[in-house]
Amino acid sequence: MMRVSAIPAVLRFEIEAECPETGARAGLLHTPHGVVETPVFMPVGTQATLKAVRPTEIIEELDAKILLSNTYHLFLRPGHETIRELGGLHKFMSWPRAILTDSGGFQVFSLSNLRQVTDDGVLFRSHLDGDPHKFTAASTVDVQLALGSDIMMVLDECLPYPASHEAAKESLHRTIRWAAEAFNHYRKRREGENAPSALFPIVQGGMYADLRKDCANQLCELDAEGYAIGGLSVGEPRPLSLDMTAITTPLLPREKPRYVMGVGMPDELPEYVARGVDMMDCVLPSRNARNGNLFTSRGKLVIKHARMKNDPAPIDEDCGCSTCRQYSRGYLRHLFNAGEMLYSTLATIHNVSRYLDIMRGIRQAILLGKFPEYLRAVRSLPVEDS
Amino acid sequence: MMRVSAIPAVLRFEIEAECPETGARAGLLHTPHGVVETPVFMPVGTQATLKAVRPTEIIEELDAKILLSNTYHLFLRPGHETIRELGGLHKFMSWPRAILTDSGGFQVFSLSNLRQVTDDGVLFRSHLDGDPHKFTAASTVDVQLALGSDIMMVLDECLPYPASHEAAKESLHRTIRWAAEAFNHYRKRREGENAPSALFPIVQGGMYADLRKDCANQLCELDAEGYAIGGLSVGEPRPLSLDMTAITTPLLPREKPRYVMGVGMPDELPEYVARGVDMMDCVLPSRNARNGNLFTSRGKLVIKHARMKNDPAPIDEDCGCSTCRQYSRGYLRHLFNAGEMLYSTLATIHNVSRYLDIMRGIRQAILLGKFPEYLRAVRSLPVEDS
Repeated sequence: MMRVSAIPAVLRFEIEAECPETGARAGLLHTPHGVVETPVFMPVGTQATLKAVRPTEIIEELDAKILLSNTYHLFLRPGHETIRELGGLHKFMSWPRAILTDSGGFQVFSLSNLRQVTDDGVLFRSHLDGDPHKFTAASTVDVQLALGSDIMMVLDECLPYPASHEAAKESLHRTIRWAAEAFNHYRKRREGENAPSALFPIVQGGMYADLRKDCANQLCELDAEGYAIGGLSVGEPRPLSLDMTAITTPLLPREKPRYVMGVGMPDELPEYVARGVDMMDCVLPSRNARNGNLFTSRGKLVIKHARMKNDPAPIDEDCGCSTCRQYSRGYLRHLFNAGEMLYSTLATIHNVSRYLDIMRGIRQAILLGKFPEYLRAVRSLPVEDS
Repeated sequence: MMRVSAIPAVLRFEIEAECPETGARAGLLHTPHGVVETPVFMPVGTQATLKAVRPTEIIEELDAKILLSNTYHLFLRPGHETIRELGGLHKFMSWPRAILTDSGGFQVFSLSNLRQVTDDGVLFRSHLDGDPHKFTAASTVDVQLALGSDIMMVLDECLPYPASHEAAKESLHRTIRWAAEAFNHYRKRREGENAPSALFPIVQGGMYADLRKDCANQLCELDAEGYAIGGLSVGEPRPLSLDMTAITTPLLPREKPRYVMGVGMPDELPEYVARGVDMMDCVLPSRNARNGNLFTSRGKLVIKHARMKNDPAPIDEDCGCSTCRQYSRGYLRHLFNAGEMLYSTLATIHNVSRYLDIMRGIRQAILLGKFPEYLRAVRSLPVEDS
């Protein structure tokens, strides 16, 4: 369905180790803004900021190598042309490392009453001011090229759960057509200018194995630099999300990175990796931090609980983050109850650090050939609720 | 009126240079938590945090040597006993440098409908939950000793502006009596335990020169380690605040630090110093930062203005703070408009840095014997509004 273009690759993905039992991989994803160790969890900086945390801390304390930012939000405010004028998203937000942007599709399809799908794209109204806008497969590539993302996503239709097989199939064909249109446009743009941004298509298909397979196979013809799996974490039972992932990853090229969008809870991270996933993102660590829900190596901790009032212990005795090294639960509870912004900064640093620590543990286990043991150990732990 | 006690001094104040023309002084204030170069501006951390900024940044980037925190707020939440249990205010908020706390008087007297003055103190209701509480001269010393402040303030009555001479006089006598009670209690506590906190009385007297003088003279008998001037910046014209300061400082002991509470705008800082003031504090730099009003070497900058949208310049080309080194006005305007907490962090770092830079400039001028020239230069600049 798509000619393979001669434009040079933007990314280089090196697989360092593969778990023979599960298919989990450890690799290095070389991007125009640095090397990302995989499997990787990408913190989310929706509006060109990981809420409440400066890039300085993300680099020096968390050492995250890649952030995700949201095209929909940046398109509306401040506008991609403003960001282009100010030197692109990396310079705008003072983040020298890699950035992945979504296409805005997920956000637009979440605006159930404010959008209308057409053959070539989606009409929607801004949640900020009600102004009408349109995203097409080509326009969202243009927006992301203006941002200067290292990894861009194609426009896709993200169905709610549950959806009928018929609705999922119809939607799927639109997603596949948009992916082809996006790649056509992308390759033309890249032939004409120096725009070092890779583009990933997104496998959809609802919760139907046949549609997922069909979609994966067709998208592989695009010969993309990496592949995403979308439409998960939309309300379906957790085992179903993992099943949809497990039937999709074997159909994607082994040598390309695989990205499951919008997952997951701490205990789900190794499960996705065990199904051959290399990249994940989720607002959970940062959003839960701000809401007072902290992830620890011993389970969830709710900071506002009265029993924290005089507690001198850190959030997690086994955590080495700057928050745990310096602050007590009692102080964090005080800041939370007093509505102090510093709470969000300290809590986000901890929760994101927890996620990145889990990913480092997973990666280390794969590199050491011990991932099956790691998986058995974490599966024996009690499950946390979001 | 007060016996002079043999308890050892907590502070040591070294005057390094004095301007013969104005009486401005440069000194070193040795505290139990480090040396503070004076004249000094103390950023305000009302609820045991400089809003939106971690102590790490206050130390490494702003290099503030002393913070102010509010007894009233900490007494109500989380409670001084909680802070004592958690190791005192320094440990609680992870701030290893000096802390000055007010007595809570100013806040309590701002609760005009919720408080009642009695002979030995003031009854008030919490602004948080309406619970009744009482502050006395002794109890506010106890609260501040529980916090472990390096410098504590006596309970004083802070009159609104304008007040009649009669009302100011009556209030003044109460303030002087409370100061004596506070020192009696403080010296007993210090004789009994190792509590390295100094206590400053506060000169009141409304806008009446005779009352200010009377108050200063009587408080000097307490032989305190430093003296504060309160009841300014309560709505009176600016020249009057400076006049009240100018008639008070010559009556205070030359060898002790002098602190004017709750001032001021950037252009007022050198004016207070020119009147012999060593210490100041104000919420202006941090509060204005959060409200979008940024102080620069060229005057005020309102970050939300549309003309900032695509502006690649930093807040202030001549500022070396971490915000100005890394972020454009366009990015800061975006964060402000998007309601992002990171805006407050970056803006507060800049505004506080601006204040501390002004103080370093003033101090340097005094040390070099160039303060009169400095003063003439800054007086020729246009005046900023808050």
